[in-house]
Amino acid sequence: MAYDAKPDVKTVQVLRDTANRLRIRSIKATCASGSGQLTSCCSAAEVVSVLFFHTMKYKPTDPEHPDNDRFILSKGLPFVDVATGCLGQGLGAACGMAYTGKYLDKASYRVFCLMGDGESSEGSVWEAFAFASHYNLDNLVAVFDVNRLGQSGPAPLEHGADIYQNCCEAFGWNTYLVDGHDVEALCQAFWQASQVKNKPTAIVAKTFKGRGIPNIEDAENWHGKPVPKERADAIVKLIESQIQTNENLIPKSPVEDSPQISITDIKVTSPPAYKVGDKIATQKTYGLALAKMGRANERVIVLSGDTMNSTFSEIFRKEHPERFIECVTAEQNMVNVALGCATHGRTIAFASAFAAFFTRAFDQLRMGAISQANINLIGSHCGVSTGEDGVCQMALEDLAMFRSIPNCTVFYPSDAISTEHAVYLAANTKGMCFIRTSQPETAVIYTPQENFEIGQAKVVRHSVNDKVTVIGAGVTLHEALAAADHLSQQGISVRVIDPFTIKPLDAATIISSAKATGGRVITVEDHYREGGIGEAVCAAVSREPDIRVHQLAVSGVPQRRKTSELLDMFGISTRHIIAAVTLTLMK
Amino acid sequence: MAYDAKPDVKTVQVLRDTANRLRIRSIKATCASGSGQLTSCCSAAEVVSVLFFHTMKYKPTDPEHPDNDRFILSKGLPFVDVATGCLGQGLGAACGMAYTGKYLDKASYRVFCLMGDGESSEGSVWEAFAFASHYNLDNLVAVFDVNRLGQSGPAPLEHGADIYQNCCEAFGWNTYLVDGHDVEALCQAFWQASQVKNKPTAIVAKTFKGRGIPNIEDAENWHGKPVPKERADAIVKLIESQIQTNENLIPKSPVEDSPQISITDIKVTSPPAYKVGDKIATQKTYGLALAKMGRANERVIVLSGDTMNSTFSEIFRKEHPERFIECVTAEQNMVNVALGCATHGRTIAFASAFAAFFTRAFDQLRMGAISQANINLIGSHCGVSTGEDGVCQMALEDLAMFRSIPNCTVFYPSDAISTEHAVYLAANTKGMCFIRTSQPETAVIYTPQENFEIGQAKVVRHSVNDKVTVIGAGVTLHEALAAADHLSQQGISVRVIDPFTIKPLDAATIISSAKATGGRVITVEDHYREGGIGEAVCAAVSREPDIRVHQLAVSGVPQRRKTSELLDMFGISTRHIIAAVTLTLMK
Repeated sequence: MAYDAKPDVKTVQVLRDTANRLRIRSIKATCASGSGQLTSCCSAAEVVSVLFFHTMKYKPTDPEHPDNDRFILSKGLPFVDVATGCLGQGLGAACGMAYTGKYLDKASYRVFCLMGDGESSEGSVWEAFAFASHYNLDNLVAVFDVNRLGQSGPAPLEHGADIYQNCCEAFGWNTYLVDGHDVEALCQAFWQASQVKNKPTAIVAKTFKGRGIPNIEDAENWHGKPVPKERADAIVKLIESQIQTNENLIPKSPVEDSPQISITDIKVTSPPAYKVGDKIATQKTYGLALAKMGRANERVIVLSGDTMNSTFSEIFRKEHPERFIECVTAEQNMVNVALGCATHGRTIAFASAFAAFFTRAFDQLRMGAISQANINLIGSHCGVSTGEDGVCQMALEDLAMFRSIPNCTVFYPSDAISTEHAVYLAANTKGMCFIRTSQPETAVIYTPQENFEIGQAKVVRHSVNDKVTVIGAGVTLHEALAAADHLSQQGISVRVIDPFTIKPLDAATIISSAKATGGRVITVEDHYREGGIGEAVCAAVSREPDIRVHQLAVSGVPQRRKTSELLDMFGISTRHIIAAVTLTLMK
Repeated sequence: MAYDAKPDVKTVQVLRDTANRLRIRSIKATCASGSGQLTSCCSAAEVVSVLFFHTMKYKPTDPEHPDNDRFILSKGLPFVDVATGCLGQGLGAACGMAYTGKYLDKASYRVFCLMGDGESSEGSVWEAFAFASHYNLDNLVAVFDVNRLGQSGPAPLEHGADIYQNCCEAFGWNTYLVDGHDVEALCQAFWQASQVKNKPTAIVAKTFKGRGIPNIEDAENWHGKPVPKERADAIVKLIESQIQTNENLIPKSPVEDSPQISITDIKVTSPPAYKVGDKIATQKTYGLALAKMGRANERVIVLSGDTMNSTFSEIFRKEHPERFIECVTAEQNMVNVALGCATHGRTIAFASAFAAFFTRAFDQLRMGAISQANINLIGSHCGVSTGEDGVCQMALEDLAMFRSIPNCTVFYPSDAISTEHAVYLAANTKGMCFIRTSQPETAVIYTPQENFEIGQAKVVRHSVNDKVTVIGAGVTLHEALAAADHLSQQGISVRVIDPFTIKPLDAATIISSAKATGGRVITVEDHYREGGIGEAVCAAVSREPDIRVHQLAVSGVPQRRKTSELLDMFGISTRHIIAAVTLTLMK
């Protein structure tokens, strides 16, 4: 193949000069702030110069333009498209962007991810490698900046760039080994990458940390530090002396072939099709609701982690196979891919897994929130009500985790109608949303006409004589209703509340109900006590005098038994609610 | 090399028969319980037969014997040494056992880890691969059971065993590709592995899921299911018909060369060497205390994730380099290795990282708690007080995470003396312990004679006229003390409490203090509101009438600024505490 994009001699010099100007900027910026990743910037200066001023096609005046090539800086430096200050997260997001470009947008834009050598220690990087080769993402290029040095010492492989090369090739990538300070070699490698079909390309760039700064280049203990103030001027002058031109290169314009899309104000055309009393698991309803959302908007996509037959996302897949992304058991990468798919507002992404397995991706979720990602996570098999399916699959800490994520909306629907509304609201809500679904078949309690809002609880049962407020969600709401039935036969009226969203929590409804029932509140949840519904309620009423909260929650390590046995064993069944109400009224 | 361990013809037949007996047992057990991983057991039957009855050396009557070879079943089946029901966690634990065997015990026992092909999608597997080759763990053998099928469909690589082989070799492992149903080939491969020096061995075993069961072998949709009840007898008879012997093989005895050790009742010989008023960061004190613990017991080890110069675990490394394990930036693997090092009570493991980065290992921590692991985690750089070091490094959800882990003890020391006690108590406490440390230098407030206990708060300041109880920890305890000083000049007495452990929380001291101060409580924490100290306190007092809690906590996404600016910006500084006290007293 003819190398028709070879830069002329002058362009090569301008690219070299641009790299040195980047070095000078980095020296000045880090000196001014007193900290920052100067030495890592210096190792990558030529890569960045070539990418931004020779290889990438984009509109510099319109960074949000959908047809721009994408750049992800995964080395843990500033934000570009997604926050990747934590190592090993950028490539998964890049995979999501490349997947979107190739299969959903079917557009010309390409995706470039600059990674550090140190971050190849993070397993999430290899999850992304496997994903990209499995899906033949030939619009994706990853650059390993192999500068040898990590934060506290040399990276395990030091300058063993051939080992990186072997790993990339073993994971199915087209791979080039280049001198990362040679702009001509970089230009050629990026051009070759653009010619390769059906394989992503890795460019293993051998570089030196702190390149160009005497006594700091390739030396330990300079990670994250500026140059000594007294040496700054001399170093800047030395680098300036190597600059031969005074020109700037203009990046190439992108091909404008992304489809026009809309991901806002999604409407569904029919109300939920369930009748009060129907029995269906909320996790199954989720699958059905998702397929319906897929009909309402063609940018709704679903990601799954080898669990589609359990989380019921396979219902969506059957109807919309071209918008279903199987991410296998690699939850960190699944979340990163979802983040990537959702950037630039290109999709409405729903990622489904057993709720317990999202613990695998807590760091990715945390970083997603920091970059204000617009993604929806659905966690099934919550709590001990999961029953005989196994201990490690029972999510008992997912509410604690998702509640702690800034601005995350946490839905916990209790029947089919509210589940369908949760899916609808999540699709229409900016930011991160989590929906907690359950395995047991439970009765539909709402009519198809019922309206749901984020932060608005439902008072499911009430009378003027209510003595206690019981708050339950999911299976425990049904246990609470059964307890209320039983108690009413004894002449004890109980108010029952379904919070619908655990974050934000409807404090006003809870407080007014508590006050109407003598300040007596019982919470009952299929989750650990810590960070769950009970603590959220305690905090919500904490400034009110005369409200007492009695928490029923799971404690200890669960076991593998029938759902009904476990609810009883862990103190959250109808029987325990009745006992708690009775005890509360005795005080 | 002569293959002197080759089994004779009769032994080969007994191994085959043993594999078929395992199949029959699995069929019966899964039929009885109605669920279970039958088809995965059938693919691994020959591997298990050869390992347990030909290769491994152990005392079947004494499974806890320290010289036994170790076996880790990572495929997500029952518990063996560590709970590995979640995929991709077993190999890291196996690495910890192998590291302990080779470098700490310097003993003959070997470590075998049986893995599924599906779990190779989990990046944590490749973190472990990199670790094992970096540390030349030639006493470690990993078997990939490449049975082609995952839970919901084929694994991405299907039967591409050569791709697994390439990946294992690229990551630096000695690798054999074998027919996983051929007991002779398996015997030979395990023997060869035992002869290789300085490299771990991977055995890629090509198998069939559901092997030996007509119409189920290699068929989809049989994951986690028993055979149909009506077919069970016929299938058992068919497999029985292939059994030719009636003998059992006796496993070989282990070489008994592990050192005698003790990890209980560790004593330190001197009290903490700090004076009241000294200024030092708790994260630095942690490093010093750890080195001291290392002197007190030679089985204290420290693991680090490329952060030893920030978490101060380098102080330990300097003094005890042979007991320091650098795990680079692979936090999931670091926790798994710690779990492995701690099994069989072989070490007292402390794993250090930035607290925020433990979110990466939430699933591993969760599973560690399920298997009652005895490990200590130390998280530095907590909260916005981390200051200019960067947003993604500020842990604001770590208390929510660690509190939700069953039976985890959560320490949050506020000065050097209490930090040293926390390290001492963690070393002497069974189960999982987390210690939260801080970056700012804060004053020593306790005398060296002060005694600390888990679950026992300190009333740091009190008088008979106290009007409000303020609860702070870490930097916010010092802010609270400054607020108390300021308020006392205005004639307002404030009681100040240091909880010391957030879990268990000293509810009795908090409640009695609250009652003594008119039911007024203010909590102030460098952590998100959700799942933190405030919610824990609200829950602790929730059944008491007339106690009101006002929570000061961080909300939203943090920024990169000076510590003092951030404490003020996020509402947890002295000024905000004074305002909250004033407001509370106005009500």
